[in-house]
Amino acid sequence: MMNLKFDQNGLIPVIAQDYRTGEVRMFAWANEEAVKKTLETGYAHYYSRSRGSIWKKGETSGELQRVVEVRVDCDEDALIYMVYQEKDVACHTGERNCFFRDIWGEKANKVLPFEVLQRLQDVIKSRIEEKKEGSYTYSLFLQGEDRVLQKFGEEAVESLIALKNGDPESIKAELSDMLYHMLLALTIRGVDISQVLEELCSRFK
Amino acid sequence: MMNLKFDQNGLIPVIAQDYRTGEVRMFAWANEEAVKKTLETGYAHYYSRSRGSIWKKGETSGELQRVVEVRVDCDEDALIYMVYQEKDVACHTGERNCFFRDIWGEKANKVLPFEVLQRLQDVIKSRIEEKKEGSYTYSLFLQGEDRVLQKFGEEAVESLIALKNGDPESIKAELSDMLYHMLLALTIRGVDISQVLEELCSRFK
Repeated sequence: MMNLKFDQNGLIPVIAQDYRTGEVRMFAWANEEAVKKTLETGYAHYYSRSRGSIWKKGETSGELQRVVEVRVDCDEDALIYMVYQEKDVACHTGERNCFFRDIWGEKANKVLPFEVLQRLQDVIKSRIEEKKEGSYTYSLFLQGEDRVLQKFGEEAVESLIALKNGDPESIKAELSDMLYHMLLALTIRGVDISQVLEELCSRFK
Repeated sequence: MMNLKFDQNGLIPVIAQDYRTGEVRMFAWANEEAVKKTLETGYAHYYSRSRGSIWKKGETSGELQRVVEVRVDCDEDALIYMVYQEKDVACHTGERNCFFRDIWGEKANKVLPFEVLQRLQDVIKSRIEEKKEGSYTYSLFLQGEDRVLQKFGEEAVESLIALKNGDPESIKAELSDMLYHMLLALTIRGVDISQVLEELCSRFK
């Protein structure tokens, strides 16, 4: 591996970023041994400054982080672990990531553009698994695959008309409808949006 | 603002994350004054440990970071600045972000699922602006809006057929085609994919 610049305590800051959603799951520290264990095992290891020891994330909670890639910054003194987060929870508080508050201490609930397709499909999956009464998603799901595909087709046609007319507000609204129904159709077919996006990534030049 | 835990040097680690793509643009440090200046001005300020002073990102290069939101982690000892990156470049090396190498020192070129739609639309925009010869995007653009919309419609119908048939490989391929043509149609209409995704975010419950 590269020569990393560890600080006077032998540590380097690590950003754990979710490979699918892009959200920063947590921020922690690693020493050289923790980085090596991460590379050897494929699972995120850190160094606890309070306990003075290496820890494997999720060893007791099951909230393991499978590391797809480790990236290094230009100064070689900070890392990103690009992770699949098991159980979809990373914070010891039970929140999905550690950055759940804004600077005013308010809950930072806002879902951001880069994560919204994945997060929305995850909600769609849970509505169906929970058989959520009163949910639009679940009731459309119950009407069967042809009805879901028909809705996707309708919204694609409405998107086309909006794009032809050129009004930005209609374009945003109709494409949002189409994307939502696309996610529902994908869910019925057992395909994750990250798999579609990976296909697009593989074509990226 | 919240009571933050600054370290023994009065500093707190800051992750600058791109609001549109989700990529981590850079990792740096701030003191209390830098955080306050960031909040007051709406532009990212940091503290340089080597120079021993506050700096405004992009003050000389123009690579300013407009801060949409500041998030705080569970331990109150790390921040995220959620930023719009001006000039689309954050690293002093000229790279778009500082994490452009993997742990083996190789160029980390891989575009990741969460960022691919935005990154792809940015490429589409540049192909058109540069009037790139031999580019599929530019040649389709030259054929006019009706042809672009027709292609989007065709790919939507092919997506529908693939979803009906259920083969995951065809679904991924056809939806990728559709999403690409959707991005081209959006570009012609001057709508950014982040605006469509923001519309989806605003509906998120």
